[in-house]
Amino acid sequence: MAKERDHHSNKDKKLLVGVVWNFSTELKLIFMALLVIFTLATLLPFIPSSSFSLSASDFRFCISRFSPAVVPVNITSTAVNKTEPEIDRVLDNGVIKRTFTGHGSAAYNFVTMSAYRGGVNSFAVIGLSSKPLHVYGRPSYRCEWVPLDPTQHPVSTTGFKILTDWGYGRIYTTVVVNCTFSSLSAVNSGGNLILHATTGDPSLNLTDSIPVLTEPPNSVDFDLYTSSAAVKKKYDYLYCGSSLYGNLSPQRVREWIAYHARFFGDRSHFVLHDAGGIHGEVFEVLRPWIELGRVTVHDIRDQERFDGYYHNQFMVVNDCLHRYRFEAKWMFFFDVDEFMYVPEKETVESVMESLEEYSQFTIEQMPMSSKICYSGDGPARTYRKWGFEKMAYRDVKKVPRRDRKYAVQPQNVFATGVHMSQNLQGKTYHKAEGKIRYFHYHGSISQRREPCRHLFNDSRVFLENNPYVLDTTLRDVGLAVKTFEMRTIGDRLIRTRQ
Amino acid sequence: MAKERDHHSNKDKKLLVGVVWNFSTELKLIFMALLVIFTLATLLPFIPSSSFSLSASDFRFCISRFSPAVVPVNITSTAVNKTEPEIDRVLDNGVIKRTFTGHGSAAYNFVTMSAYRGGVNSFAVIGLSSKPLHVYGRPSYRCEWVPLDPTQHPVSTTGFKILTDWGYGRIYTTVVVNCTFSSLSAVNSGGNLILHATTGDPSLNLTDSIPVLTEPPNSVDFDLYTSSAAVKKKYDYLYCGSSLYGNLSPQRVREWIAYHARFFGDRSHFVLHDAGGIHGEVFEVLRPWIELGRVTVHDIRDQERFDGYYHNQFMVVNDCLHRYRFEAKWMFFFDVDEFMYVPEKETVESVMESLEEYSQFTIEQMPMSSKICYSGDGPARTYRKWGFEKMAYRDVKKVPRRDRKYAVQPQNVFATGVHMSQNLQGKTYHKAEGKIRYFHYHGSISQRREPCRHLFNDSRVFLENNPYVLDTTLRDVGLAVKTFEMRTIGDRLIRTRQ
Repeated sequence: MAKERDHHSNKDKKLLVGVVWNFSTELKLIFMALLVIFTLATLLPFIPSSSFSLSASDFRFCISRFSPAVVPVNITSTAVNKTEPEIDRVLDNGVIKRTFTGHGSAAYNFVTMSAYRGGVNSFAVIGLSSKPLHVYGRPSYRCEWVPLDPTQHPVSTTGFKILTDWGYGRIYTTVVVNCTFSSLSAVNSGGNLILHATTGDPSLNLTDSIPVLTEPPNSVDFDLYTSSAAVKKKYDYLYCGSSLYGNLSPQRVREWIAYHARFFGDRSHFVLHDAGGIHGEVFEVLRPWIELGRVTVHDIRDQERFDGYYHNQFMVVNDCLHRYRFEAKWMFFFDVDEFMYVPEKETVESVMESLEEYSQFTIEQMPMSSKICYSGDGPARTYRKWGFEKMAYRDVKKVPRRDRKYAVQPQNVFATGVHMSQNLQGKTYHKAEGKIRYFHYHGSISQRREPCRHLFNDSRVFLENNPYVLDTTLRDVGLAVKTFEMRTIGDRLIRTRQ
Repeated sequence: MAKERDHHSNKDKKLLVGVVWNFSTELKLIFMALLVIFTLATLLPFIPSSSFSLSASDFRFCISRFSPAVVPVNITSTAVNKTEPEIDRVLDNGVIKRTFTGHGSAAYNFVTMSAYRGGVNSFAVIGLSSKPLHVYGRPSYRCEWVPLDPTQHPVSTTGFKILTDWGYGRIYTTVVVNCTFSSLSAVNSGGNLILHATTGDPSLNLTDSIPVLTEPPNSVDFDLYTSSAAVKKKYDYLYCGSSLYGNLSPQRVREWIAYHARFFGDRSHFVLHDAGGIHGEVFEVLRPWIELGRVTVHDIRDQERFDGYYHNQFMVVNDCLHRYRFEAKWMFFFDVDEFMYVPEKETVESVMESLEEYSQFTIEQMPMSSKICYSGDGPARTYRKWGFEKMAYRDVKKVPRRDRKYAVQPQNVFATGVHMSQNLQGKTYHKAEGKIRYFHYHGSISQRREPCRHLFNDSRVFLENNPYVLDTTLRDVGLAVKTFEMRTIGDRLIRTRQ
C-alpha cells in the first residue's frame, strides 16, 4: 500500500509537472516573454548611458508625459517676460485691488571683486552693491565657512558691512564685508567661504548665496597671521595705486616710477590698476620694472560696467589693501601725478621708523603748477627736462584745506579710502609735514602735449590770479633719478614720448 | 535525376527549417525573449502616462544617466548661485586680469502699475524704475503696438520718458512713458502694447519686453478722444487722492467726504488710494458713499514693496490722472486733511467757469492749527463739534512761501505731481486766491485722540511763538454739511469714533 501511495504521489507530481510542460509551445513562449518584460522593467534604470542613444528632446518629451514638475527653464538676458501680468480685480467690498509687477533688473544686489583671508578666523569680501539699497534699504550679510573636510561642520557669522566711499557711490557703492568667525580653528583642510547677501526686501527677503573664496587644503600659511609685527615682511613699502584711466602720458609715468623705485628702495613694490589708462605706450614704460619684479599691473577694465564713482577706485584700493595686507609693513596710497619726498637730512627708513607707533599717518600736499615751468637753463633745455624738473612752481594760494594722501600699517586696517582709512585700530597722525610731504602735479598726467605753457625765471610768479613760488625741491634730485633709472633698467625708455 | 535534385533541395529546405525548429526549446525561448525586448524598446516612449506610476525622481535619475543636458533647474528666491565664479588669470604680459561678477538683483528695471490709452494713437505707461539708473545711466524706452489682427503690422515708436517726482525718488523713481505712434489708425480690432525698457548697460544693453496693456477687439470708444471739449464728461469734478497711510481718524475722514460731496455736487467723484490707511473703521465711513457711487477706493498696498518715496504717491496720482482722464472735466489733487472753499457769493461752477481758459491752476493754502480750538459754544459743546468747526484758528506766521495744491483739465496733461503738473499743454494760473482756496488741518488726520489741546475764545492767539487768528469760514458751514450728510446717507455714521 505504501509503495502504491508513494508511487501515486510521485505520479501526481510528475503529472503536475507534466501538465505544465505539456502546455503548447506557444504558451511556453508567452510565459518566457512576460518573464523577460518584468525583468526588463526592473533592470532598465541601471543600464549604463553608453548603451543607448536616445536624444535629449525625446526624453524631455518622455519626462513631460510622466512628470510635469520637471520642465527645463529657458533663461537668457533678453528673454521676453513670460509672466502673465497680474490683473487688477474688484474685491467683494467694491475696492479695486491694484497689482504691481517688477520686471528685469537695474542693479545687482552684490558684485564680487575679491575675498581674502585676513586672519585665523577672519576674511574680507570686497565688492560693490546697489547704492540706494544701502541708503534706503536694510541689506544684511552673513558669512558661512564650509570646510572641505566633511567631518567638520560649516560655521556662520554675521557679516560686518563697511561702506567706505564717503557717499560717493552712484548706481553702486563700494562694500567691504568683514567676516570674523568665533570658532574657526587653524586647520589647513581647506574650505569655501559663502557670502549670503540679503536685500531685506520686506515682501520677499531675497538672499543671494555667493561663493566668494575657495581655499584648497594646505594652502594657508597661518604663520602670516600669528607672527609678531617684528617679523620682516616681504616688502617694507607697498604702493597701492588708484584706478588709472584716460590718455596717460607715458613720459610722466616713466618719470614717476623711476623716481619712486629709487625713493622707496629695493624692498618696495608698486601695484597699479588699469581701468583703461595703461595703454600700449604706458605699458612699455612699465615693462622693465615689471620684469624686475618691482611692479604688478592688475587689469580692472571690467569694472567699468558698474557705475560706482570714478572707476570704482574705492573698491580698488580696498582690494589692494586686503590682497597684500600681510606682504608689506607699510602701504602707501597716492596717485601717479604725486611724488613723495622726505627732507634731505632724512631717509625714508628714518622717517618711517619715527612713525612706527602709528597705524596711519596723512601726508601734506604741495600743489605744483603743471603749466608753469622754470626756464633757468634756457627754453630749449627746459622742454627736454623731466616733468618734475621743469614744473617747479608751487601754488601758494591760501585755501582752507587741501586734499591729503596717506600711508598705513595694513594689518591694523579693515577698510580704506582714497584720502585716508576710517576703519582701523591704532592711532592716526596728521602732523607729519616736517617728515614727509608729496608734490602734486595736478593735470600733468593726461597731458599728451608739452605741458609747459609758461616759462618763467622768477622766484615768484603771479598768473591767472594765483600766486606761485619757485620750488626746486624735486628739480634738484632730477639728475639722481635719471642716473638711477639708467643704472637700473638701462636706456630702454630713452625714446619715450610725451 | 531532376526529381532527385528537387527532392534534394526540398529536403535541404526542410532540413534548414528542421535545423532551426529542431533547436532545443530553450533556444526558442531565448529568441522569443530577444524579440520581445526589441519590441519593447521601440514601443516604450509611446505608452500613455496613466499606465505607469514611476516617480519624478526616478525619471530625473533616469534622465541624468542618459542626457546630462536636461537637468531640471531649481529656481527659488533663495537659490544658491550655481554660476562658477570666474577666476582671475595672469595674461602673457604678466598683467593680472581681474574679474567682477554680479549676483542677484537689488532693483527692478521697471515696475509696472498700469497703462492706459490716451488717444487714437497714444498711450501712457505708469510705473517705477530704479532711481540711480535714471540719475546716472541712460535708460531708454520703445513702445510697440501689436495688433490682434494678423493682417496688420506691429508698429513701434520711441517712448517719451517723463520723470515726475521732482527728484524725491529713493530706491525707485516714478516714470511715466508716453507712447505716441505716428501711424495707429482708429480701428477697433484690439492689440497689445509692449514696453521695451532698455537699461543702457554699456556691456549688456539689456532690454526687458513688458506687455503692459491688452485691448480686446471693439473695446475702445474712439469718440472719447475725438469729441470736442464741449461734450459733457461723465463727471464735472474728479478728486484724485494721494496715498492714504497711517492710523487715520475715521471721524476726520467722515467729515472730509461729507464736506466735499456737498461742495463739488452730484456730478463729482472721489478716487481714494489705500496704502494701508483705510483700515476697517475708515472704510465704514466711506461705505455709504461707495454704495452711492460717489467714491471709489483703490487698494494699492502692494506698492509698499517698492521704496519710491512716500508710498509712491507720485506714481499713484499719475495713475489716477491717466485712468480717469476722459471721464472728468476737472481733476483736483489735494489731501484728506485739506478742505476746498469758494467765497459765499460764488459757487464751484461759477468759479470753474471763470477758469475755463486754463489747463491748470494752483490753489492757495490757508494753514489751520490742528490743536487750537475755538470754544465759543463752551468746552463741552466744542469737543462734540466736527473738526473743521472746532479747529478754527489760522496760522498767520509770515513765511516766504507755502505749499499749494492744484486742479487740471486732464486732457491737456501728460504727467502730474503732488503740488502741480509740469507736463501739460495750455496755461497755468497761479492767482486764483480770490476765487478758491483750501484750508489745511495739518496733523489732524492721524490724530486718534481728541485733537483740541488748547481752547480759546479770542480772535487772536499767540502760542509757541506762532500767531493765529480766528477764522470761522468753514465753521460757519458746519451745520449745512451735517444736514447734507444726514439727508444723503442718513444717520449711518452717527457713531463714528475719533
